[in-house]
Amino acid sequence: MSTYLKDNFLLKNKTAERLYNDYALNMPIFDYHCHLPEKQILENLPFNNIFEIWLKGDHYKWRLMRNYGIDEEYITGNKSDKEKFLTYCKVLGTAFGNPLYHWSQVELKEFFNCELEINEENAEDIWNWCNEFIKLNNITPRSLIEKSNVKYIFTTNEVFDDTETFIKIAQKGYKFKVIPAFRADKIMNIEADKYNDFVGLLENKTFPVKNLSGLENALEARLKEFIKVGTCASDIALERVCPIADKTQAENVFAKRRSGENISTEEAEIFKGYLTYFLMKLYKKYDIRCELHVGAMRNNNTEMLNKLGLDTGFDSISEDNSIRLMSRLFDRLNNENALPKTIVFNLNPKMNTEIMTLIGSFQSPGAKGKMQYGPAWWFLDNKVGMEKHLEDLTATGHIAAFIGMLTDSRSPLSHPRHHYFRRILCNYLGKMMEEGEMTKDEKLVGKVIEDICYNNAINYFGVK
Amino acid sequence: MSTYLKDNFLLKNKTAERLYNDYALNMPIFDYHCHLPEKQILENLPFNNIFEIWLKGDHYKWRLMRNYGIDEEYITGNKSDKEKFLTYCKVLGTAFGNPLYHWSQVELKEFFNCELEINEENAEDIWNWCNEFIKLNNITPRSLIEKSNVKYIFTTNEVFDDTETFIKIAQKGYKFKVIPAFRADKIMNIEADKYNDFVGLLENKTFPVKNLSGLENALEARLKEFIKVGTCASDIALERVCPIADKTQAENVFAKRRSGENISTEEAEIFKGYLTYFLMKLYKKYDIRCELHVGAMRNNNTEMLNKLGLDTGFDSISEDNSIRLMSRLFDRLNNENALPKTIVFNLNPKMNTEIMTLIGSFQSPGAKGKMQYGPAWWFLDNKVGMEKHLEDLTATGHIAAFIGMLTDSRSPLSHPRHHYFRRILCNYLGKMMEEGEMTKDEKLVGKVIEDICYNNAINYFGVK
Amino acid sequence: MSTYLKDNFLLKNKTAERLYNDYALNMPIFDYHCHLPEKQILENLPFNNIFEIWLKGDHYKWRLMRNYGIDEEYITGNKSDKEKFLTYCKVLGTAFGNPLYHWSQVELKEFFNCELEINEENAEDIWNWCNEFIKLNNITPRSLIEKSNVKYIFTTNEVFDDTETFIKIAQKGYKFKVIPAFRADKIMNIEADKYNDFVGLLENKTFPVKNLSGLENALEARLKEFIKVGTCASDIALERVCPIADKTQAENVFAKRRSGENISTEEAEIFKGYLTYFLMKLYKKYDIRCELHVGAMRNNNTEMLNKLGLDTGFDSISEDNSIRLMSRLFDRLNNENALPKTIVFNLNPKMNTEIMTLIGSFQSPGAKGKMQYGPAWWFLDNKVGMEKHLEDLTATGHIAAFIGMLTDSRSPLSHPRHHYFRRILCNYLGKMMEEGEMTKDEKLVGKVIEDICYNNAINYFGVK
Repeated sequence: MSTYLKDNFLLKNKTAERLYNDYALNMPIFDYHCHLPEKQILENLPFNNIFEIWLKGDHYKWRLMRNYGIDEEYITGNKSDKEKFLTYCKVLGTAFGNPLYHWSQVELKEFFNCELEINEENAEDIWNWCNEFIKLNNITPRSLIEKSNVKYIFTTNEVFDDTETFIKIAQKGYKFKVIPAFRADKIMNIEADKYNDFVGLLENKTFPVKNLSGLENALEARLKEFIKVGTCASDIALERVCPIADKTQAENVFAKRRSGENISTEEAEIFKGYLTYFLMKLYKKYDIRCELHVGAMRNNNTEMLNKLGLDTGFDSISEDNSIRLMSRLFDRLNNENALPKTIVFNLNPKMNTEIMTLIGSFQSPGAKGKMQYGPAWWFLDNKVGMEKHLEDLTATGHIAAFIGMLTDSRSPLSHPRHHYFRRILCNYLGKMMEEGEMTKDEKLVGKVIEDICYNNAINYFGVK
Repeated sequence: MSTYLKDNFLLKNKTAERLYNDYALNMPIFDYHCHLPEKQILENLPFNNIFEIWLKGDHYKWRLMRNYGIDEEYITGNKSDKEKFLTYCKVLGTAFGNPLYHWSQVELKEFFNCELEINEENAEDIWNWCNEFIKLNNITPRSLIEKSNVKYIFTTNEVFDDTETFIKIAQKGYKFKVIPAFRADKIMNIEADKYNDFVGLLENKTFPVKNLSGLENALEARLKEFIKVGTCASDIALERVCPIADKTQAENVFAKRRSGENISTEEAEIFKGYLTYFLMKLYKKYDIRCELHVGAMRNNNTEMLNKLGLDTGFDSISEDNSIRLMSRLFDRLNNENALPKTIVFNLNPKMNTEIMTLIGSFQSPGAKGKMQYGPAWWFLDNKVGMEKHLEDLTATGHIAAFIGMLTDSRSPLSHPRHHYFRRILCNYLGKMMEEGEMTKDEKLVGKVIEDICYNNAINYFGVK
Repeated sequence: MSTYLKDNFLLKNKTAERLYNDYALNMPIFDYHCHLPEKQILENLPFNNIFEIWLKGDHYKWRLMRNYGIDEEYITGNKSDKEKFLTYCKVLGTAFGNPLYHWSQVELKEFFNCELEINEENAEDIWNWCNEFIKLNNITPRSLIEKSNVKYIFTTNEVFDDTETFIKIAQKGYKFKVIPAFRADKIMNIEADKYNDFVGLLENKTFPVKNLSGLENALEARLKEFIKVGTCASDIALERVCPIADKTQAENVFAKRRSGENISTEEAEIFKGYLTYFLMKLYKKYDIRCELHVGAMRNNNTEMLNKLGLDTGFDSISEDNSIRLMSRLFDRLNNENALPKTIVFNLNPKMNTEIMTLIGSFQSPGAKGKMQYGPAWWFLDNKVGMEKHLEDLTATGHIAAFIGMLTDSRSPLSHPRHHYFRRILCNYLGKMMEEGEMTKDEKLVGKVIEDICYNNAINYFGVK
């Protein structure tokens, strides 16, 4: 059976189809947050088989297979690439409603020109088709990204990462730019076992860090290095926002931890509360956008953490309860004229309207949508999540100020998700248009769509 | 381009249209909670221009403009009325999905007979049209309210407000009655800077307040004055419900605050917990309905609070966590036969079903729907919010007992929101009827609609 | 007026109709959690009238009547069966959108062949029709259950309940099996007034319980007795998950309570945290599935608790905040290879995705969907709740692993709720199929439907 995907996929009426085809389809892509490894983009080695591109590092897919009771041998274990691939196809074949059910089918069509429906029966044929296609077409990270019409990619890099790779990429003549977003999470998460090692890596790139002020200086020095290769965005991931502590308190915690002692949860929160505040001030100083991710509860399963490490599919949505602390953080920064442009990504859908209305209290003439409510993220990055995001965003904010989609992905296959979002966006608007709930002026609406797809992000990040 | 608004706006099938036109359209309006200034109604001065009616005091509109990055000069600043109006039209023109996008267009059509679509292009024409219309038609608060077929308006008044204005309004021969709802929030919020001033205002209207018992007596005296002008409703706004404290504890906090000392958050909660309990008992004693508003987090932005004051568009939805305390409050009152008819307005949609099922545990034969789940409020007062309210209400309660919509507004232009709600209600029912999920008996359904639009409120508040 | 129920009730397109008729309709029912009294099934006495079957013990219906302001006399009071029945029909007639509005109408049609629409006007006719039908057809619990094509029923039994009744039922030659699920809640809820009486009942069935180890042994002994009559499931109901306490701490609390002293909330949580952990380990040891119910806040209304007792319609949804504790509980058990197959039933819809993503972190090859997110429960057991459940489940998990519906009911009339769910399931899939969002392969989809209706539960519980 050939794929259910039609040209009007997710576009439920004619207006939606026109909006998509006339305005959204050909806009370039600005992927302002992802986890693509810059070295992979630089080296640009051809892939060997479909497993390597699709399943090797994708914990979303692993997780779906575990939900179906598949043995870990077929997921991250010793089975062959082909056995793993066939198993994934089988599992996916009945995962109706799951975002991977759509994404995988879309990727197959977009990148491999394959119209077969993914399921147990077709698995072997798909394996053969794709691998032959890969052989014939010299599929590389660059070719995939350029095929997707991507213009900007912001990778996520620790403060001690090399920035040279980005200079080298810039010299390659790719049709897209790759720029690192500055991420200090390894320096933030003071309770981690290897914390002092991470500070050591930072010292290697800067100078000896003797105290908290030294740490601040080292972070600022690294940010300046990042800015040299084009950085204009940063990333902070917090399970919850912590209260802003005094620097002296944070200093004490930092000293204790640097001396090799363990610290309590309360002490860790003191340090994080202060450092979040410091970093956001720093970002304001250098006009760096702050991408704030809240609401993930990580590494629930210790057994699997020990076996497979971080980011292998054992995280979940937290019940974060810190909207008041987020209010206090933004207000303090705002009072000190130190609140940067901020994008809040929220993982818990129950908090959508809380956060949306909060950030609506800190808008300012500095930018169209200075405070952004980030697009549906991770567990919410699916049709239902995106539709709810749009509903909540339009009900409490201004849709035309929205900077649109990103991938948050580790795979160069993921950029069609932008078009997945664009279809949902056009359908959302097209439905309201045909049902008489908004203007029928397609030019006006089309302009808003183009802005959300690309132009707003260009303006927001100030590139070019 | 002329407006997208058609007669069947929001009515998606023929049954919905019939229900709306045959039953909902011509029912009068009972606006049982709003913030219309009674003096404005009494004076009944004609408006000068559309800016004055539309934008002058409406922080919903201000907030939308800020979300789009508009400079405060064009919102609350020194720009001319016309410049501000044109800016608003421009911003609104692409605010698809936002409730203001609908409300403003509806108001333009209903009150100014203007069919132009609101956007940047039409802004100047709309400005001219409306101002000419205002000049020609002597538009006043009274004319707007009477045009909307309003029969009852409950304003919201502090305990120390004058009640004479209401007597004067009653002598004016208007086609609607204006009655104050009794609100003791200024006496409740003991942590406020001006608290003792507010108690002073209360003393001016009554007698010197020496202690908590004195305060109680003063409040009761004022309530009796309000009742003389028709009051049958009261209002309490709480960010969260506080535990019921002993009177002695509350007494101590009150004495401390009266002596000019500041009090802690914990002390404030003790006082509020006790006073909430006291007030609800008082309301039961005099058969006053209690409108309880929970879940707002106010004044997030200190800078703008200092610049513009309260209620200027910098509030948000809180993450209130006090359903257990609400249960204990209702239960204690119920045990003492002191639980008044209560309408709970909830601002956080994640708490809809918690609160709905809680109040369902305190119903009693005293009234059809003694405990009411109030209509979608403030940030939820939009299409999505109302539909969710109806969905949750019908799933966990009895729709035919619902007392329906209000405006919560400061503007005499807002009454078409009742019809906005009625369209959504009729569409909600009409859809189920045509899809075979409920009876096709339109008379039976129509009766329920009429009750929700008006009759239930009449019975609930016991007016006439 | 005759009923709005048509054959395609809830099936909104042709594909949905085919899926339902070809795959779902004739699958047997596995009711893996309910509160049917086993003695009623054994005795199998014919019912006297429709009131007895419908209204006598159903607190869902009582609650709806209270929401409408009906006097308790007509609900649980002294009015005649007929008066109560007529009142219920009147109230139900306008309860549009409420699940009872559908369920009652479905039950009338399915079991009494009555096509009259339930409302005030038809009430008397329905009363007469049904009572005549009951007289003519010898309606008994067995006849109702067999008519519904039920194959397995898991009742819910306290640890000290007799298991002999189940042996006797097995000898009756019924077409369905009745098996008790093991529930230790009366032994868990250490703060209850009658706690020591309940431990006494357990002692009567086993041996004197001198300390916590003795209690553990007694529980294990009872579980073994249950297993002899087929038990493969257990039930734990918690308002919130408590931290896992040390056995010594729990021992102290248990000793204190056994000595007749009252204990604090904190002490109760210590005991419950430990006992939850112990019980789940025990269930793993004997391969007993654990049905974990979280999120109910019970007995809000003390006055009515004193008048009518437990489970009479005064419970509500809690604001439980223990997802982190749930994570720690599952992780500890998993580390000790002691995490049983677990079904989490969640009553607060705001926590759907938190819990779904958490249990997705503890899947394992032991079973297709070892960790299950239970179907929409109690206040959520309605169209909106089920649709949201399916949406959230498919977005974050694997639909084909789902073990499907149950009744949670006290009435042998409730099994059509399985078909209510099946219609919603088929409609959910049929919609996506016709809208091009998933495969059109009806055989493949049909297999998944059959699995969700019945086969997955058979495999999950390992019966046969």
